[in-house]
Amino acid sequence: MDTSRRDMLKLGAVASLSGVGITNASAATLERQPILVEPMTGNAGFRIANYLPKMGASSRLGLVTNDGLMVDIPAEAARLRMTLSFDPTSMISLAGSGNQGLLELAKIFKNRGKSMVSVNQVTLLSPIPKPQSNIYCVGWNYLDHFEEGLKHRADTSVKEYPKVPVFFSKGTQTMNGPFSDIPYDGSYSTMIDWEAELAVVIGKKGINISEENAFDYVFGYAAFNDTTARDVQQKRHSGQWFKGKSLDGHGPMGPWVVTSGGVNLDDTRIICRVNGVEKQNASYKQMYFKIPVIISELSRSLTLLPGDIIATGTPSGVGAGRTPQEFMKPGDVMETEITGIGIIRNRIA
Amino acid sequence: MDTSRRDMLKLGAVASLSGVGITNASAATLERQPILVEPMTGNAGFRIANYLPKMGASSRLGLVTNDGLMVDIPAEAARLRMTLSFDPTSMISLAGSGNQGLLELAKIFKNRGKSMVSVNQVTLLSPIPKPQSNIYCVGWNYLDHFEEGLKHRADTSVKEYPKVPVFFSKGTQTMNGPFSDIPYDGSYSTMIDWEAELAVVIGKKGINISEENAFDYVFGYAAFNDTTARDVQQKRHSGQWFKGKSLDGHGPMGPWVVTSGGVNLDDTRIICRVNGVEKQNASYKQMYFKIPVIISELSRSLTLLPGDIIATGTPSGVGAGRTPQEFMKPGDVMETEITGIGIIRNRIA
Repeated sequence: MDTSRRDMLKLGAVASLSGVGITNASAATLERQPILVEPMTGNAGFRIANYLPKMGASSRLGLVTNDGLMVDIPAEAARLRMTLSFDPTSMISLAGSGNQGLLELAKIFKNRGKSMVSVNQVTLLSPIPKPQSNIYCVGWNYLDHFEEGLKHRADTSVKEYPKVPVFFSKGTQTMNGPFSDIPYDGSYSTMIDWEAELAVVIGKKGINISEENAFDYVFGYAAFNDTTARDVQQKRHSGQWFKGKSLDGHGPMGPWVVTSGGVNLDDTRIICRVNGVEKQNASYKQMYFKIPVIISELSRSLTLLPGDIIATGTPSGVGAGRTPQEFMKPGDVMETEITGIGIIRNRIA
Repeated sequence: MDTSRRDMLKLGAVASLSGVGITNASAATLERQPILVEPMTGNAGFRIANYLPKMGASSRLGLVTNDGLMVDIPAEAARLRMTLSFDPTSMISLAGSGNQGLLELAKIFKNRGKSMVSVNQVTLLSPIPKPQSNIYCVGWNYLDHFEEGLKHRADTSVKEYPKVPVFFSKGTQTMNGPFSDIPYDGSYSTMIDWEAELAVVIGKKGINISEENAFDYVFGYAAFNDTTARDVQQKRHSGQWFKGKSLDGHGPMGPWVVTSGGVNLDDTRIICRVNGVEKQNASYKQMYFKIPVIISELSRSLTLLPGDIIATGTPSGVGAGRTPQEFMKPGDVMETEITGIGIIRNRIA
């Protein structure tokens, strides 16, 4: 890695931590930005990416170093003659492998060889390109986002803040890569809106999970954008949000999963920028139903599986809540940042 | 197969066609009823089951004859030295194999050997035990069901009939076998309700499918019950139906898939009986948004895949719409019949 890129990575990390990031850049400039590797906020964790080392190669999992280098997990395991307890091409398999998998990652990371490439020289894919069920989503999970929506919602019967998390789902085909384009069809929706969210990846099968034990079921975290066709969500289907939340590619995730030990939630901010202009910026502390409550309520009579994804809700600042309302159009670049985890950047196609 | 069973099968088929079926039987008697094989209503089709030939064996696909005998597809293909274009243990794979797969089924069926067993001597599983995304569902798709719900719904803002189908989803873990028990947890919901539905299985990948071409994307049909925790659906999550529709095992399907050529939709009735008492009975003709409209609207900006399941909505007669309201309790037996396809029968555990 050359010095200028390393400087860029350091600069990016510092800028992101300050909550500023790249501002007011043109969409074209934004698209060429290198991938930033932010310092983790937790004591000990791994950044685990799903990536293509080069065009035509098969996808695999990799560990991302603080310097932005990629450790090829299957290749390094083979070199070290390790038999892994998980399939090193599947985040779902790794998530379900428990402590044994994490111990194996630690051994690979410690003994990693020198033949690493920059994360900027590979193609990062969604950590979980084919979820095994729809993405579990939480609505109205920041007080100010609930309130900004009150004046625009079609369903006027909900005026009081919910007593438990509001759940809905996004189709599996919404899943998209961290730097992939998002399809746009103006004949169907002209109100494509951003919703930056912290995503939880489940690591252990469970049902009727207590709030006390909920974090035992968390494998890690990623940035997610619950991109929404606002008109389809709110009006077209009599108040059911599913279809407006489920357009192809409208759920970019990444840039990698940070395992739970690498994330201090209270230091986490959820940020969205469109064309470099900050639109959302809130702390995990402002989240109304915290992760243990979400997992506990969601898992009532419903079995969660390793690799399941929960998008935990978006803070205020969405386009539909603004006066006048703002929506994205082709060419716009949407950045979703979870501090301590990373930034994903998607262009509206 | 002995004569008495054959008589029972014939009797069952006739009784079912008349829309009467088994009535007023006790739950215990109901559970011991043999599996009925109803005559198909279309010109030419196959009944394709997913089953365990015996305990400890692996699941596989089978063809069900009019006499209720099971043709073991992988075993017969091996005996006939056929190389199949699909995985004979996966309905999703078969659904995606197109005409080639159907031609192979026809060859197997024509040349089937004598070593068949009765469908009553195997364990029938859900045709698609692990759907690759949540089950697509349509709400309020019979006028009288929309109207019966008006007086009970929490969301009072929807008074006019929707202009397009209302979509929501059921989690993949709701999938259940055609004769399997449905879990019951009275500490979470005491309003478990029935919703008999005709399920469509998609046979071809597509997006933005026109109404004119929609039937080209249908592989077949099955009986489905969109079993619902009515309290959780309507009140607990501020009007979003997902969670109340997504309790483990609350989506039994089967008893097999009848390929589209075997079904004449206008001859199809959607029937539900609880403990032998008929609760729902409507014709496909009463369905408000017909299958081409559903597929066309659902596939707007959303890619459907072979093996995807669409539950097309339930007619009037659900427990929540009755005065007084009725819900199921442990020990109750719920029968869901789609005439020309078959009956599934599930006990509340």
